[in-house]
Amino acid sequence: MTSRPLAVVLLSGGMDSCVTAAIAALDHDLALLHASYGQRTEKRERRAFEDLANHFEALHRLVVRLDVLAAIGGSCLTDPSIDVPEGDPDRKGIPVSYVPFRNTHLLASAVSWAEVLGAESVWIGAVEEDSSGYPDCRASYYEAFRRLVEVGTRPGTRLRIETPIIGLRKPEIVRRGLELAAPFERTWSCYRSSERACGTCDSCALRLRGFRQAGAEDPLHYE
Amino acid sequence: MTSRPLAVVLLSGGMDSCVTAAIAALDHDLALLHASYGQRTEKRERRAFEDLANHFEALHRLVVRLDVLAAIGGSCLTDPSIDVPEGDPDRKGIPVSYVPFRNTHLLASAVSWAEVLGAESVWIGAVEEDSSGYPDCRASYYEAFRRLVEVGTRPGTRLRIETPIIGLRKPEIVRRGLELAAPFERTWSCYRSSERACGTCDSCALRLRGFRQAGAEDPLHYE
Repeated sequence: MTSRPLAVVLLSGGMDSCVTAAIAALDHDLALLHASYGQRTEKRERRAFEDLANHFEALHRLVVRLDVLAAIGGSCLTDPSIDVPEGDPDRKGIPVSYVPFRNTHLLASAVSWAEVLGAESVWIGAVEEDSSGYPDCRASYYEAFRRLVEVGTRPGTRLRIETPIIGLRKPEIVRRGLELAAPFERTWSCYRSSERACGTCDSCALRLRGFRQAGAEDPLHYE
Repeated sequence: MTSRPLAVVLLSGGMDSCVTAAIAALDHDLALLHASYGQRTEKRERRAFEDLANHFEALHRLVVRLDVLAAIGGSCLTDPSIDVPEGDPDRKGIPVSYVPFRNTHLLASAVSWAEVLGAESVWIGAVEEDSSGYPDCRASYYEAFRRLVEVGTRPGTRLRIETPIIGLRKPEIVRRGLELAAPFERTWSCYRSSERACGTCDSCALRLRGFRQAGAEDPLHYE
């Protein structure tokens, strides 16, 4: 078996990170990293992560708990007193599902792990245009993060930060995933439920519209 | 009682973060944040944090666990199989006590909490020159982190990242602390022991040299 370069991939268990892992897997061995942060569907997402890690035959897998995000709340995803609103894919502004500065925690975990493993790159399925408008999903954020990694790691560390789907719209992500035979049936996107996807929260609404616009069928079952 | 602007201060429990808190306290109310990450002296540092938070009459305090750093190891501080070496304040290069990308985790926690609290600034006691040579203690790292916060938080968030002692040498930090009546007797710096400071690890060696060069006496007891 030939050894390939090692990539750390952040894998939430949703469709975007699944497609990102499928792209990374084309020419890397995978170290898959999942974070729990007290989000409502934590256990269901964790199961999606394990199912996907099995599918991709990950060389390493790590599940970490982002204690601070669970502790501080401030988002409908982590604070049970804030309801998950109905989705509107055309809404502008920062939604209440925004978890303050979340992707910095995820990326910091990935970079620390990559430094210890000696991985060559860190991959994240951030999407700029067709997403919920989170500030830490924009290309400018990743430019700034690349600079931080350059100056904040060991002088010998050379880590690329890869955002392969950041410029894609949801239907393009679906098509790319289908081309790569990404196992969408093993993913989980719903913010609200862990049993059967609600179909109406922001995340479900964006996903369903993406499949519809791609002319494809979502393998998940919805309410 | 007049309300003052709120500052989130990262407080490890060591002398640098203690002096940083004393500076912030001059014109802010304090929200103090401490992180455990499986370091050897975790409990002792936690006690120093609580003692210092009492001294500074913190308006908010939060202790978080950085699970990922405990899980991945890679440093003598978090991996029991790697010995803590004797200190040499003149040593060059990155020491084995380096915890990969650690300050990004600390700062991400502080920024997330600050966004939720509506604080106006985040303070960290990083020291560039007279420190252990960690890459994430350099001024260039904080420049990059400021840019990250600018692009990675809500459009309405204006958070200053303050590093008031980054350009000071250890004796200057001691003198600044003495001017401000910083409670050095409540701090803990030793990497190795939680009972009586060893006096010889990197952290103890830098601290003791700082007090000596300042012509002051360290109130801690050493082996």
